[in-house]
Amino acid sequence: MGIGATTRDVAAGEIPTIGVGMLGYAFMGKAHTNAFKKIAYMTWPPPLVPRLVSIAGRNEEAVRNAAERYGYEHWTTDWHDLVADPAIGLFDNGGPNSLHAEPTIAAAEAGKHVICEKPLGRTADESYEIWQRVAATGVKHLCGFNYRFVPANRLAREMIEAGELGEIRHFRGRYLQDWGDDQTLDTWRFHSDEAGSGALGDLGAHVVDLARYLVGEFEAVSALVKTFLPGREVDDAIEAAVSFAGGAVGTVEATRLALGRRNALQWEINGSKASLAFDMERLNELQVFRADGDRARGFKTVLVSEADHPWWEFWWPPGHIIGWGETFVHEIHHLLRAIAEDGDVAPYGATFEDGYRAAEVCDAIVRSSESGAREQIAYRMT
Amino acid sequence: MGIGATTRDVAAGEIPTIGVGMLGYAFMGKAHTNAFKKIAYMTWPPPLVPRLVSIAGRNEEAVRNAAERYGYEHWTTDWHDLVADPAIGLFDNGGPNSLHAEPTIAAAEAGKHVICEKPLGRTADESYEIWQRVAATGVKHLCGFNYRFVPANRLAREMIEAGELGEIRHFRGRYLQDWGDDQTLDTWRFHSDEAGSGALGDLGAHVVDLARYLVGEFEAVSALVKTFLPGREVDDAIEAAVSFAGGAVGTVEATRLALGRRNALQWEINGSKASLAFDMERLNELQVFRADGDRARGFKTVLVSEADHPWWEFWWPPGHIIGWGETFVHEIHHLLRAIAEDGDVAPYGATFEDGYRAAEVCDAIVRSSESGAREQIAYRMT
Amino acid sequence: MGIGATTRDVAAGEIPTIGVGMLGYAFMGKAHTNAFKKIAYMTWPPPLVPRLVSIAGRNEEAVRNAAERYGYEHWTTDWHDLVADPAIGLFDNGGPNSLHAEPTIAAAEAGKHVICEKPLGRTADESYEIWQRVAATGVKHLCGFNYRFVPANRLAREMIEAGELGEIRHFRGRYLQDWGDDQTLDTWRFHSDEAGSGALGDLGAHVVDLARYLVGEFEAVSALVKTFLPGREVDDAIEAAVSFAGGAVGTVEATRLALGRRNALQWEINGSKASLAFDMERLNELQVFRADGDRARGFKTVLVSEADHPWWEFWWPPGHIIGWGETFVHEIHHLLRAIAEDGDVAPYGATFEDGYRAAEVCDAIVRSSESGAREQIAYRMT
Amino acid sequence: MGIGATTRDVAAGEIPTIGVGMLGYAFMGKAHTNAFKKIAYMTWPPPLVPRLVSIAGRNEEAVRNAAERYGYEHWTTDWHDLVADPAIGLFDNGGPNSLHAEPTIAAAEAGKHVICEKPLGRTADESYEIWQRVAATGVKHLCGFNYRFVPANRLAREMIEAGELGEIRHFRGRYLQDWGDDQTLDTWRFHSDEAGSGALGDLGAHVVDLARYLVGEFEAVSALVKTFLPGREVDDAIEAAVSFAGGAVGTVEATRLALGRRNALQWEINGSKASLAFDMERLNELQVFRADGDRARGFKTVLVSEADHPWWEFWWPPGHIIGWGETFVHEIHHLLRAIAEDGDVAPYGATFEDGYRAAEVCDAIVRSSESGAREQIAYRMT
Repeated sequence: MGIGATTRDVAAGEIPTIGVGMLGYAFMGKAHTNAFKKIAYMTWPPPLVPRLVSIAGRNEEAVRNAAERYGYEHWTTDWHDLVADPAIGLFDNGGPNSLHAEPTIAAAEAGKHVICEKPLGRTADESYEIWQRVAATGVKHLCGFNYRFVPANRLAREMIEAGELGEIRHFRGRYLQDWGDDQTLDTWRFHSDEAGSGALGDLGAHVVDLARYLVGEFEAVSALVKTFLPGREVDDAIEAAVSFAGGAVGTVEATRLALGRRNALQWEINGSKASLAFDMERLNELQVFRADGDRARGFKTVLVSEADHPWWEFWWPPGHIIGWGETFVHEIHHLLRAIAEDGDVAPYGATFEDGYRAAEVCDAIVRSSESGAREQIAYRMT
Repeated sequence: MGIGATTRDVAAGEIPTIGVGMLGYAFMGKAHTNAFKKIAYMTWPPPLVPRLVSIAGRNEEAVRNAAERYGYEHWTTDWHDLVADPAIGLFDNGGPNSLHAEPTIAAAEAGKHVICEKPLGRTADESYEIWQRVAATGVKHLCGFNYRFVPANRLAREMIEAGELGEIRHFRGRYLQDWGDDQTLDTWRFHSDEAGSGALGDLGAHVVDLARYLVGEFEAVSALVKTFLPGREVDDAIEAAVSFAGGAVGTVEATRLALGRRNALQWEINGSKASLAFDMERLNELQVFRADGDRARGFKTVLVSEADHPWWEFWWPPGHIIGWGETFVHEIHHLLRAIAEDGDVAPYGATFEDGYRAAEVCDAIVRSSESGAREQIAYRMT
Repeated sequence: MGIGATTRDVAAGEIPTIGVGMLGYAFMGKAHTNAFKKIAYMTWPPPLVPRLVSIAGRNEEAVRNAAERYGYEHWTTDWHDLVADPAIGLFDNGGPNSLHAEPTIAAAEAGKHVICEKPLGRTADESYEIWQRVAATGVKHLCGFNYRFVPANRLAREMIEAGELGEIRHFRGRYLQDWGDDQTLDTWRFHSDEAGSGALGDLGAHVVDLARYLVGEFEAVSALVKTFLPGREVDDAIEAAVSFAGGAVGTVEATRLALGRRNALQWEINGSKASLAFDMERLNELQVFRADGDRARGFKTVLVSEADHPWWEFWWPPGHIIGWGETFVHEIHHLLRAIAEDGDVAPYGATFEDGYRAAEVCDAIVRSSESGAREQIAYRMT
Repeated sequence: MGIGATTRDVAAGEIPTIGVGMLGYAFMGKAHTNAFKKIAYMTWPPPLVPRLVSIAGRNEEAVRNAAERYGYEHWTTDWHDLVADPAIGLFDNGGPNSLHAEPTIAAAEAGKHVICEKPLGRTADESYEIWQRVAATGVKHLCGFNYRFVPANRLAREMIEAGELGEIRHFRGRYLQDWGDDQTLDTWRFHSDEAGSGALGDLGAHVVDLARYLVGEFEAVSALVKTFLPGREVDDAIEAAVSFAGGAVGTVEATRLALGRRNALQWEINGSKASLAFDMERLNELQVFRADGDRARGFKTVLVSEADHPWWEFWWPPGHIIGWGETFVHEIHHLLRAIAEDGDVAPYGATFEDGYRAAEVCDAIVRSSESGAREQIAYRMT
């Protein structure tokens, strides 16, 4: 040891922990687990240090492998184990849509805080049931609309809240992917019983949630739901002309057949003072037009990575962009803080009520497609 | 004079001329006249050399000034003079929408070929009447959907015709402008009797025509028509979810209130083999994605200015881009060739039948907005 | 004639004319002639109405055809005829570089105003001689650096003049084309006696002129000149690290071998208060970053097409973009106004002094490439 | 536990570990540590599981905090402790440039594999010394040119290796940042003794390394080194015209004063068959132009996130982009595999020889700026 130098073992941390039980080891299991692990050191000090207690999944080999890979203390093929485990304080449901309701409600009723991936349920009815049952328990609940946690989207929300857009006239949102044009592909996402719907719940629900987050409540939808591939049980695309309670009008689209668009959640909002636009394939950027009288006027490409931008204190110097995976870091950090401080998940995080409301809009899209009529949106209250 | 050099006066040209009678001296009068003048030397040899015989307009001082400026031989405040003038072989109607029907029909019935700006009539009924009456005369007729004559749009059409897109799944088109958010502005475009509609006929009709040109006939529309500004007689915006006879689904939008979008006619088409996208604010570019198996796959920004691109033989070396005004050069050149060679305006140019069909779709958008129901598109035949 | 309507023949215009003698019927002949014709009606009222008196060129058939096509009253294979023609008040030299000096000087000494395409001469010496001889006659002279007349570039100049950039630190400019990679292609542009240089004078001179126009005088250059294709007489590319008298540093590049770049004259300027960037392939756009403290900061894509933007009063509503060809309309209009009003071509137009100064920088680039040393720029004065 | 379900504690992993000693807790300390932690579960199975043994830094409170935050077992204010610690198999030097040589050499001589941040040394001499001393020990060594590990850059390298670009004619590279224009800011990066140079070693070295990685060895440089801010000890910007041994020519630039450019490492390569372009602010994208005869030709925006793209097996579905921080995951994973398999760090990773070679080019830039002469690049061999 160098003269005058100091060295020491690191003491055990003093930040409280929270035990995590994870349902699902695939795409969402990986994304959420990565977030739990990064929160512990990237968001310093974290509100709570996640302790990876147990992971559940149907395939034994896969779940065992996941536990080893991610460092969960236990694994199980039965999600009831998570509900029964007193070491678990937070239940994270990243399973197929058909597995959202029962485990989530059971976990909440066992006193655990809950995250559930979107769509909350396969229908508005199922979503309402989940919301109501969970809300009655008093636990914190968050529905995984992680795109609220893209810095650009949060910046947009803050600009809108501050009145920087003036009166909002238009929202046009679309979530375009192209992996659905494959007859050989099989996943629960193509089975109606497990998924509930196709592009609608998978992609369209994100557009609906962001529209609600940024513009406000929907008033009505006139929509088409379309399945292109023969034999496919769920929809490949939805198209809707929409109106909002606040007076704006626009469109909502989602598709898995937009060739060349890999993960293009795009939206544009036109207000009387400013316009904003976003594309998830360039998620670090927000397009901003201000009617500020500058002779050199135009849409700015804002690289949302400045010290005064949302969540940027967690990351790097300006311009050193972050990835899609970090949206979960922000989302779960938000929930952990709400748990630690007994604060609200709303309005910046999506609660189960938000999950339910998105489902109401999605259901209305289906109804409109079937009836051919414009469908008004009516929300059930608690 | 240099030894051995040759010099001579230029002989009178041997290319046949066609006398032009222009109704309207404002925006479209300027755009069309510029085209007539440029065709004479940029498209060499032109099918016919336009001779600017006479221009008509309501304001005497303005029309006299226009005649002097553009080199018309005569001017008049009464469009009947154009119809009566035997020197005029081509009648160009660039007047307000309420002045489309009567003069255009009269000119055709007087044996003159006719161009009429879009929308052809203020309603499908009026448009049908114009089409029928004019078609009965046997003259050539073109409806001024000039965006068919953007090289990028024509290239798109040729790619689609060649089967390069495969099965088309989606069309999303929108025409976004922002000059409408001005209570102090007065123009015939805001008066329902003169304009018929607002953003719908002015902008939406272009989207509808391009959709028909590129994708095919509409099947049904579910739409909203919205007026934001108090006291405005016409619509500010329209939003529609649409389906096509060929199976594609998508959206059609038009607005004069999309702040920051100055002339953004944007569309995207997704096929099973390729996708295309376009934005009029970058009208020299076409975005092209091909599912060609290249590991380095992505949307190409094609600068549509190569020697083998549409109409490029008229212009400059590759990359030396052209402006919006040149779409009229292409359009009117197309018509002049059809006249000179007794060829067809269709399918690359829009005929009055196309003008009528666009009006049917626009009317259906209005009906759908009023009824709240999906409206099927049915075309009347000759 | 309709009752109460007014009609009349158009009287001869009262705007004074200027007779034009054009040397060259190819690329520049077409571009300049188009400008002369459009000035007469697009820029209303024009300072002078160009009268196309005569066109000269070496190939008899080609020049005769050009005269007929463009409407010149006469044609000749001997440029001395233009110099001798008293009807010609403006001599426009669009010939090969080797034909710049003698005809231009002769025309000026015959009392005609002169435009000469760039590069002014094939060397600084030749350019200096042209400048001196022409300046001594007192006629107006303009060197065809037409990119000063791109609205975005003029807007940039105006912003810089107004101090909006603060202290300028960097200029990086490059003119990238790719047509040079063709061994089978033959043009005077590849012959050293006719062209003087390759990419240097053809493309690099434009970058040098824009740098001087926007940033100020060069101080020194450290450069490489490179010919890639075996047997080619002239350079294919130049690369230079440069410094400016005002303290900025940067780069200047030009090449005919940048595959995929068709007409990419790109520059970026970084100042202490703002940065600007430009690409000719999107010539209607200027990128503008302002350090204005906006939380939503970023480069704006300014569509330079507003009513208060340079030359826009000649054209269309905002967003209806113009083409590369219109730069010549602006350029020649500028010269005609200087002639009509006995005003100055400088500083917004390039005079022959500017043509000479660009040649000094180009010569220094060649010297630096040969010597391996940084070469200081020293200008000869009148 | 559910009937028939399986649950178990997770056994200790069987993947070998490697003990990490980290010097530096600031920017690079955070970036590298994040990589060590993510490698353990995102790259499954990892070549070696990093064990965070100890972290060293000068400020006691800061280093203690870092140890706790990141989970290092020990901390120390004396880097010699890391060298002496037998539990450490990999020494990671993320300290200031002045602390690169001694600790790195000592660690290697103690038998530890080493990573050292770039620039390797403050001069070519120092870098050569580090390389030679370390290479003599036989340990694996990697110099932190992490931008080789951006998927787009690796894809570019693979395309070039496969001959897809043909003969390379041009490289233009620049690294533009803007945080340097702040007189009040103090950091070791502005002190010549600690940093060695300013933008040159910090940013320019990255450009030089990528040029070598993609194009090959430099032949000569003609350069300027510039300090704008009064009193600043190090350079703010460098500009160079460069040539490569393989025949290409181009430019290299680096600056901390390009207002609005936050982290813009941009390069473009033009070959005879294809061109490529890249911008770090959009690090998931590669621009690709192929001369493949397609009528619809243009630069593709390749979203480098496909299953067959470099390192993508670690991450998410296509289009779900990654962040700047992940470059270190790829980089360190590469080193760990070389250690585990006793493989080579070169050619895809930068060795200390690469670190030295970049320093030779940087030194030549300084010499050229001082001498005004073109400086040839000559490398010392082992």
